[in-house]
Amino acid sequence: MTKSANTMWGGRFAAGPDAIMEAINASIGYDRRLAPQDIAGSRAHAAMLAATGIITDTDAEAIREGLLTVLSEIETGDFPFSAALEDIHMNVEARLRDTIGEAAGRLHTARSRNDQVAVDFRLWVRDQCDQADEALGALCKALVAQAEAGADWVMPGFTHLQTAQPVTWGHHMLAYVEMFARDRSRFADARKRMNTSPLGAAALAGTSFPIDREMTAKALGFDRPMANSLDAVSDRDFALEFLAASSICAMHLSRLAEELVIWSSAQFRFVKMSDKWSTGSSIMPQKRNPDAAELIRAKIGRIFGANVALMTVMKGLPLAYSKDMQEDKEQTFDAADNLMLALAAMTGMVGDMTAQRENLKAAASSGFSTATDLADWLVRELGLPFREAHHVTGSLVALAEGKGCDLPDLTLADMQGVHAGIRDDVFDVLGVENSVASRTSFGGTAPSQVRAQVAHWKEVLK
Amino acid sequence: MTKSANTMWGGRFAAGPDAIMEAINASIGYDRRLAPQDIAGSRAHAAMLAATGIITDTDAEAIREGLLTVLSEIETGDFPFSAALEDIHMNVEARLRDTIGEAAGRLHTARSRNDQVAVDFRLWVRDQCDQADEALGALCKALVAQAEAGADWVMPGFTHLQTAQPVTWGHHMLAYVEMFARDRSRFADARKRMNTSPLGAAALAGTSFPIDREMTAKALGFDRPMANSLDAVSDRDFALEFLAASSICAMHLSRLAEELVIWSSAQFRFVKMSDKWSTGSSIMPQKRNPDAAELIRAKIGRIFGANVALMTVMKGLPLAYSKDMQEDKEQTFDAADNLMLALAAMTGMVGDMTAQRENLKAAASSGFSTATDLADWLVRELGLPFREAHHVTGSLVALAEGKGCDLPDLTLADMQGVHAGIRDDVFDVLGVENSVASRTSFGGTAPSQVRAQVAHWKEVLK
Amino acid sequence: MTKSANTMWGGRFAAGPDAIMEAINASIGYDRRLAPQDIAGSRAHAAMLAATGIITDTDAEAIREGLLTVLSEIETGDFPFSAALEDIHMNVEARLRDTIGEAAGRLHTARSRNDQVAVDFRLWVRDQCDQADEALGALCKALVAQAEAGADWVMPGFTHLQTAQPVTWGHHMLAYVEMFARDRSRFADARKRMNTSPLGAAALAGTSFPIDREMTAKALGFDRPMANSLDAVSDRDFALEFLAASSICAMHLSRLAEELVIWSSAQFRFVKMSDKWSTGSSIMPQKRNPDAAELIRAKIGRIFGANVALMTVMKGLPLAYSKDMQEDKEQTFDAADNLMLALAAMTGMVGDMTAQRENLKAAASSGFSTATDLADWLVRELGLPFREAHHVTGSLVALAEGKGCDLPDLTLADMQGVHAGIRDDVFDVLGVENSVASRTSFGGTAPSQVRAQVAHWKEVLK
Amino acid sequence: MTKSANTMWGGRFAAGPDAIMEAINASIGYDRRLAPQDIAGSRAHAAMLAATGIITDTDAEAIREGLLTVLSEIETGDFPFSAALEDIHMNVEARLRDTIGEAAGRLHTARSRNDQVAVDFRLWVRDQCDQADEALGALCKALVAQAEAGADWVMPGFTHLQTAQPVTWGHHMLAYVEMFARDRSRFADARKRMNTSPLGAAALAGTSFPIDREMTAKALGFDRPMANSLDAVSDRDFALEFLAASSICAMHLSRLAEELVIWSSAQFRFVKMSDKWSTGSSIMPQKRNPDAAELIRAKIGRIFGANVALMTVMKGLPLAYSKDMQEDKEQTFDAADNLMLALAAMTGMVGDMTAQRENLKAAASSGFSTATDLADWLVRELGLPFREAHHVTGSLVALAEGKGCDLPDLTLADMQGVHAGIRDDVFDVLGVENSVASRTSFGGTAPSQVRAQVAHWKEVLK
Repeated sequence: MTKSANTMWGGRFAAGPDAIMEAINASIGYDRRLAPQDIAGSRAHAAMLAATGIITDTDAEAIREGLLTVLSEIETGDFPFSAALEDIHMNVEARLRDTIGEAAGRLHTARSRNDQVAVDFRLWVRDQCDQADEALGALCKALVAQAEAGADWVMPGFTHLQTAQPVTWGHHMLAYVEMFARDRSRFADARKRMNTSPLGAAALAGTSFPIDREMTAKALGFDRPMANSLDAVSDRDFALEFLAASSICAMHLSRLAEELVIWSSAQFRFVKMSDKWSTGSSIMPQKRNPDAAELIRAKIGRIFGANVALMTVMKGLPLAYSKDMQEDKEQTFDAADNLMLALAAMTGMVGDMTAQRENLKAAASSGFSTATDLADWLVRELGLPFREAHHVTGSLVALAEGKGCDLPDLTLADMQGVHAGIRDDVFDVLGVENSVASRTSFGGTAPSQVRAQVAHWKEVLK
Repeated sequence: MTKSANTMWGGRFAAGPDAIMEAINASIGYDRRLAPQDIAGSRAHAAMLAATGIITDTDAEAIREGLLTVLSEIETGDFPFSAALEDIHMNVEARLRDTIGEAAGRLHTARSRNDQVAVDFRLWVRDQCDQADEALGALCKALVAQAEAGADWVMPGFTHLQTAQPVTWGHHMLAYVEMFARDRSRFADARKRMNTSPLGAAALAGTSFPIDREMTAKALGFDRPMANSLDAVSDRDFALEFLAASSICAMHLSRLAEELVIWSSAQFRFVKMSDKWSTGSSIMPQKRNPDAAELIRAKIGRIFGANVALMTVMKGLPLAYSKDMQEDKEQTFDAADNLMLALAAMTGMVGDMTAQRENLKAAASSGFSTATDLADWLVRELGLPFREAHHVTGSLVALAEGKGCDLPDLTLADMQGVHAGIRDDVFDVLGVENSVASRTSFGGTAPSQVRAQVAHWKEVLK
Repeated sequence: MTKSANTMWGGRFAAGPDAIMEAINASIGYDRRLAPQDIAGSRAHAAMLAATGIITDTDAEAIREGLLTVLSEIETGDFPFSAALEDIHMNVEARLRDTIGEAAGRLHTARSRNDQVAVDFRLWVRDQCDQADEALGALCKALVAQAEAGADWVMPGFTHLQTAQPVTWGHHMLAYVEMFARDRSRFADARKRMNTSPLGAAALAGTSFPIDREMTAKALGFDRPMANSLDAVSDRDFALEFLAASSICAMHLSRLAEELVIWSSAQFRFVKMSDKWSTGSSIMPQKRNPDAAELIRAKIGRIFGANVALMTVMKGLPLAYSKDMQEDKEQTFDAADNLMLALAAMTGMVGDMTAQRENLKAAASSGFSTATDLADWLVRELGLPFREAHHVTGSLVALAEGKGCDLPDLTLADMQGVHAGIRDDVFDVLGVENSVASRTSFGGTAPSQVRAQVAHWKEVLK
Repeated sequence: MTKSANTMWGGRFAAGPDAIMEAINASIGYDRRLAPQDIAGSRAHAAMLAATGIITDTDAEAIREGLLTVLSEIETGDFPFSAALEDIHMNVEARLRDTIGEAAGRLHTARSRNDQVAVDFRLWVRDQCDQADEALGALCKALVAQAEAGADWVMPGFTHLQTAQPVTWGHHMLAYVEMFARDRSRFADARKRMNTSPLGAAALAGTSFPIDREMTAKALGFDRPMANSLDAVSDRDFALEFLAASSICAMHLSRLAEELVIWSSAQFRFVKMSDKWSTGSSIMPQKRNPDAAELIRAKIGRIFGANVALMTVMKGLPLAYSKDMQEDKEQTFDAADNLMLALAAMTGMVGDMTAQRENLKAAASSGFSTATDLADWLVRELGLPFREAHHVTGSLVALAEGKGCDLPDLTLADMQGVHAGIRDDVFDVLGVENSVASRTSFGGTAPSQVRAQVAHWKEVLK
């Protein structure tokens, strides 16, 4: 423990915290990531202090220039971080004093570490919302490109991992676009809600200095200052909401990744992953392990684990600031880093993967997958009640099963033996291509619907 | 297993599921709560089927009237729920057939249980967003009433549960209004995002019937139909987002509840809970156990537990529908019920509780709580740099501590002995009333600021 | 609120809790499940009070008989539960007073609701450990039966859901026996650790009555009384440890269930589920939805969610009893019920399922799955270093791939063209049957190893 | 991507993974911590390969010596870690080849990365169980020392944070010893259960080499080899059980930490934390922020978050190895590191803290805390039924409350006015010292009981 740190705490801590206390207490090991935000916040604060006459223009200018010098040192890796100085705020301030001298002592006027860390961390999380938005946009583009290419490629639509009805590749890809677009919307809402400035809340009660919180808020891109100083220093909703949105997004990624793993199996062979996103075996060349997909599937663990961690930390904390809240950053950093990595990897993977059209179509065509089309035809064309149509269809499927053929292979006579009213045009709905082409209800799987949605998304995403 | 249920599955399941399968598979034990939503959805669907000519007006009218009869039976408790019929959808449909006969068989045209349950559950969760909004509004009003009454009551502002600076009761109450207002905002965003209709997605692929999804969406109060049928039946984001918002809200409740428990202790005596919200001891009459506050504090457990449960269920599920998703409802029901209960109890408790003004003020006045005011005065009035001002203040506090008195009890001579420039008007900032009155920065704890915020919230909440 | 309940709290709560308070406070809606445990605990307590002379034998006998009457009423459904009496303890005691009169008032001597609920709940959880053990035993037997039947059925051993090496069906089944056996071991350890009696801790401090805690502990099947009365009433480790063990068990179930879902797909066709454990489609007879497997896979959600819930509740609770802890029971009840249900369903499903031997073998034989066997032969027989052997194998696989054949289809000349030392007996290791037969290392997949393990487990499980 | 890494995968991955794939795939950034375990495992494997004649003694000796050289380089920081070589296993093996040449190529015989990583990680977790045990032992000693010093110091026993009955400081300290002793027991059980060797499972199927798994198991301190090779490479129960035990332990720490935070408040003043474990304010010298206690309280977040993370990862993973499982290590490392840090800090804090005896006693004496003693006296000495005794006590408390005095301050005449049978010796139970002295039931709060427990624990912990 160096003398300067002891000085920071005042003389009563002569004994000094030992190594354990430093290990549990110091945050500089990870909060150094907040340096750009810390310096931006301090520069805005200094400008405001001068504008309101609390400090001189000369001091403010020295501080603002000095902070740029410090930032430059950090960016080039020349900054001498000190664990004894505990956190990024004290590290920067101490270095500023080395750089510009006594004027540095005026920067902390009308401010506290409590509102300082709140503004730094909030700026960081806000930036992650923007990065998530951008990464999700890129992923959506990759999915839309797949959808456009395969708007009319037929594949099985599954329920319970059993073929239920034929759908199109494009339709399946666009289902994920819907999910990831909701994720973008959630990040956007979270960003908007968090975009208020805690700066000026000081320790917890506000300040008697005639500060201008609107000015610092505006300088930092916030919509407005937060309206309650106790809330400003004790609120971590912004991080929790970011983690909740990230967790749902990671859940979506896990679903797509699961499908890619299954589709890559030798039994499915629905997609072929590129070499870039799979790993092989030196002696089993056909083996193409979908490592990236598996790792993406797993990321929900640590991202949602971080959400659980911070929720648990915040449970039952009295106002205003408790040291427990220092546990907010590492979890959020790790979750954000892993979300961005997973999104990037998924985007690359989706961009590179190749649908195996023949296998998809073959799988779609088996299992009487157009039985519901037949039933719907009976309702629509012959006016049978839904439940009766299902009964007739069941009998026809049983007939085909008995003959070892599929529905389109039955003769009209076969069919009329089950229900006399069946006409020749029933065959128009029995093939999988016909089936998907007929699902033209809004949002349905028909290629025409898929192409309309692709056009919509290309407009949105451009 | 009765014959009718076997019929539902077709004849191949002659063996029938035994009691275990029924126990794990049937959802009627809890999804009967969705009856109003199920019937509203079916009525909208029937009207649309008639409007598009898919069924006759006569059938549609019979169905719509019959559904009202069924609803009435459910509301009066006369409905014969059957576990063999598995879920609310089959129970209602079977009863409709009993009631109106064959026409009932046409209701399920161009629909599937997959989009039916999706619309039912979505309507239910949407309603919970509205209920949460209303309950949070009531809680905010109770808090604002406390804030208005105690805009200038002085109490300690804590960091680390140690007195840091004096604040006002009203300010502390309003900090929670900020939190709960953010919760309302989150529920509003979630509601808006979920307010799209899955109806018409059918099993997963859309339908070949010429349905009008805009019409059913509008009839059910949705903004528009969902744009991808696979997504429509596989999406549970709305429930997850509701649970995430509920969890953060429950976290806020846990913080306030924790404070109420601590404040009710014999050592703090900051508040007195009314008899309605605490329980006593038959032999220790002074004991007033804050049971309601403790129970509210605990509710975050099951509410966030439900969030974890559903996230875990959804992890890695392939599209479109998997039976796993049946586990979505009980968790969401339980979380919503407990959130509403906790909000109601907290509203009652806040409305009835009595701040112990004398105790609050006494606590605020101890511990040199205006030391930062003194330091700020030195900066503001004498132009000392912040860090030097802190040094001088530390010496003055040490002097007072040595004399066994508080800062306002030092003489001017005492003070000038430490720093010659100190003037008589320093005493204006040393009392706790003066301290809070001086924190007039926007969002600060000054009674004037609190009153301005109270006026703002009364306008918002009226 | 009835008068009797008000009396329980003493006269100061004239206002009485309103409906909200009753809703949040009363536990009789769920803790009535603890009636048998509550009555067993009270009977043991009464017998001890008499044996130590604290109450008379006559009173004790009246109490013990009266409690049996009350239990009988509960079992037959004739018991008039009252929400105003809040919990099972007060309900039973009030009914006992109705039944035997004044002597009932002596039962609560040297006891408190705090140690009473602790003993009741602990007895209930202990019983669940026993039930889990039994259910896991049955599941293991079903798996061992599958293993015995298919000790030599060849199937693909997967990594990354890609065929890596051939294994045997029996070996795969036994992997789950290992997991579930560890689960049993965890429940056994938890049971042993929780098997200490809180009874006699009274409210929290012990008692001045000359009670005999060893006697009540023994009567209730506990190993010994708990050694610290504060801990006895504030400990919920037993529930948490049960939930943690249940969660890991549910995770194992989710893995097996996932495999069954995948294996049931039309693409894999590795197993055929019986009609009892799958559901069909009225019009797609070949569809056999693995509903039970999916529901089992999902159960980890609510079981682990309950674990999260109770951990969150317990976080940061001061000693000794806080009302928060009332949230322990519903979560544990739900988790236990669902675990037992999932285990029963899985046992039934495993017992009934049919491995599709031909499909398993065909899948195992594709993809050069014996390439590692070839490499190992090169090391073992020709003394090649491991990495060089891999290189040679890779070349041979490439050769076969180029010829469109599998490794056993290459000629000896083909092979010697790649490495001159290869001999005719290399073909002994290339078929999948040979491959699995050769993996005779302890715990390996060779049928001989599998049969030895089956014999071991049959001995353990009998 | 360097050539050597490409070689590892074989020539088909010419494109090579780009930076994203390396970022998501490489584990060397964290699994380098497993170097000692990896080298121990490889040394044991090499010795066994020689003993069974699979490799020569010369090669084995070269390998074993070379591995020591590599370990030495790692320990001194001279080891050139390479991200292109992905993980610790490949890094060590490549360096071994640099060091000893071709013989290195024989080490991987009859082994795979799958069983290698399983053994490495298991050894690491096993070591953490031992470290947790040791740290918990030290914490228990610190608590027992506090208990011994304060076996008869009276303090309030709380329920609902309201004084319920007086207890002793020693008794309260020992309640935590019970909890932490259960934690030790859980770690011991987990250690025993995990202490089986996966080595020899190879990729997943075992091997055809005549390996001796008992020998390697014994060399590495395992009880025996695992009995199923598929389970051996796919099992992560050991990490989950460690995390579950760690989470419960962290929950205990959070409870004690919460108490220390509350007890350190100006309102309670029950304990004084030493300077080493609290931080001050440069201008508010009386402020002693319990930072260490708050940070410890928060650690349950990330520790239980890690548990959630790994449970989520493992949910629904098919056998045997999936890349998802690579997410196991960082979570477990972080949880273990933080648990050890929290235990060390708590041990230091407990060892240094000073109970404020006068404040504890004063708090215990207020609030009619001996009312239950009075009621028990009425039952015991006068034979009143429990519920009637409570009624009489309630009247006496009301009388004292009316007179503004405590129970011991009532006169005998006062008391006899409420119940004529009350005798002078009733005063023996009314003071808090008498109260605690009377609670002599096993596990009760009487100093005699506390001293007996202290003696017990000193024997256990020595």
